[in-house]
Amino acid sequence: MRAIVIAEPGGPEVLSWDEVPDPEPGPDEVIIDVRASAVNRADLLQRQGHYPPPPGAPAYPGLECSGVVSATGADVSGWRVGDEVCALLAGGGYAERVAVPAGQLLPVPAGVDLVDAAALPEVACTVWSNVVQVARLSAGETLLVHGGGSGIGTFAIQLGTALGATVVATARAAKHPRLRELGAVHLVDYREQDFVEEVRRITDGRGADVVLDIMGASYLGRNVAALAPDGRLVVIGMQGGRKAELDLAALLVKRGTVAATALRSRPLDQKAAIVRGVRDEVWPLVEADRVHPVVDRRLPITEVAQAHRLVESNEHLGKVLLTVG
Amino acid sequence: MRAIVIAEPGGPEVLSWDEVPDPEPGPDEVIIDVRASAVNRADLLQRQGHYPPPPGAPAYPGLECSGVVSATGADVSGWRVGDEVCALLAGGGYAERVAVPAGQLLPVPAGVDLVDAAALPEVACTVWSNVVQVARLSAGETLLVHGGGSGIGTFAIQLGTALGATVVATARAAKHPRLRELGAVHLVDYREQDFVEEVRRITDGRGADVVLDIMGASYLGRNVAALAPDGRLVVIGMQGGRKAELDLAALLVKRGTVAATALRSRPLDQKAAIVRGVRDEVWPLVEADRVHPVVDRRLPITEVAQAHRLVESNEHLGKVLLTVG
Repeated sequence: MRAIVIAEPGGPEVLSWDEVPDPEPGPDEVIIDVRASAVNRADLLQRQGHYPPPPGAPAYPGLECSGVVSATGADVSGWRVGDEVCALLAGGGYAERVAVPAGQLLPVPAGVDLVDAAALPEVACTVWSNVVQVARLSAGETLLVHGGGSGIGTFAIQLGTALGATVVATARAAKHPRLRELGAVHLVDYREQDFVEEVRRITDGRGADVVLDIMGASYLGRNVAALAPDGRLVVIGMQGGRKAELDLAALLVKRGTVAATALRSRPLDQKAAIVRGVRDEVWPLVEADRVHPVVDRRLPITEVAQAHRLVESNEHLGKVLLTVG
Repeated sequence: MRAIVIAEPGGPEVLSWDEVPDPEPGPDEVIIDVRASAVNRADLLQRQGHYPPPPGAPAYPGLECSGVVSATGADVSGWRVGDEVCALLAGGGYAERVAVPAGQLLPVPAGVDLVDAAALPEVACTVWSNVVQVARLSAGETLLVHGGGSGIGTFAIQLGTALGATVVATARAAKHPRLRELGAVHLVDYREQDFVEEVRRITDGRGADVVLDIMGASYLGRNVAALAPDGRLVVIGMQGGRKAELDLAALLVKRGTVAATALRSRPLDQKAAIVRGVRDEVWPLVEADRVHPVVDRRLPITEVAQAHRLVESNEHLGKVLLTVG
């Protein structure tokens, strides 16, 4: 088969569509013939050499895909050759075929195109695990989503809204109209406005109950300042650095929590539990037309370098898909 | 009645046993004729002017007491004059009488002396709310308790052990034998040993699932280093300062959580929920003789200055009680 190989760490030009060995399914795995994958920010880090695949994962990038099951391991039940699926991957989605633990498979939700389904696994699992499992967002609460225009952001806006939360999102002004359509009640232009002040104003001084953050260090102090009493900050990205001063007294006075998580490094049983949770709690919302894949564009996988440049530019809105075949 | 009055912020000498107005019960409150109170570190801060009582709380120090119900507000049910009780207070325990919301009352557990019962509410509510409610300690996990010899520490060692966790505690060497009797499986002399190394050694490199911390800033980096994957650090004191660098990448790689909480500032409904949880989950362990009040000594409330000096010295083990009448 062919897969996107990282010849050496570097810019988008190091990515090449090369012949590689076919994957073999382990006893608990299935092989998916990939129809589409999607670009995640982690792929850019992996390309640069900063985010090696965890032990046992395929060497090629790609944390999610959609496609058709073409083989099943000896111990797999519940999935058959020919099933249309999408899947959360530890890597290897930028390929014609990928082996994946059966616990990480999801059916394509009714009403969603097979290609577009590749836009869902990573954002659905990341947002659900952090916003629901870790931060326990509940109806009536306020959710602050940073990077509202990203794949994660567009999904978090929709899921938070569907769960009955009031969603505030930060994004460039050009993205505001579309994010408002997705459910964000308030939008903050982070280049012109102070999100702490805006969140306080919007919540009558109370703050956000949950903050979903992708910036890390550069936002830590302000995120704590934006928290409501009993607020939960979940850091899932560190685009603004890794180390920052934490004022524990400021956190304590709010009884606040700072969690930092990553999906990719979770053990298999945790991933499978998250996938089950997404199937039980999120897929019904997708099938009820309340949460949708948000696709910026589809590019053939041979144009992966352009896709990476687009995500690096932050000018996309939602997911950039890579189609295969 | 008489109460301990803080004439002005300062050392133990500013505390005086003075005549003050009697408290009146609100409709949801009861009056307790106090038999004993206990010294908490927060009382020392309050005496120094650093920790004012929350709005509506009595002006006098004292976050817990035991005694006998002597009056009930119009809307109180379930408690009667003459009941022997102990209670979590927002203040005012250093007095002959105190008004307290009925939701913060607990019966004196069977088998516990009325005076010793004053040693329980604050530590039971603090430890249960943080270790069980916030950090969700479960059987088979490792709990690291800093300040194992304090009231909180001695209670956390016992409760963690009773819940099936392996408890590691830091304390001065002189306190180790008694803390071992309380259930601590491993003890770390924080003046001679590196608790991060010790916890790693003891857990085969895995780390502590839950850390209950009283130091704050000075331990933040090492506490994160001592966490196991999916570990939860709960900061309930800041004896080592309030601001420190947090390495979010170190936290993220473990999917760790840093929570900071305080009991005193919680709204009434949260306090009542915690007290109910303690009554349902902790009192049966006390009555089954698996968790005990640990009393360093009893002093008459007129010797409150000496009691404060003792707690400041950190040479006590467990709670220092103040008896009234």
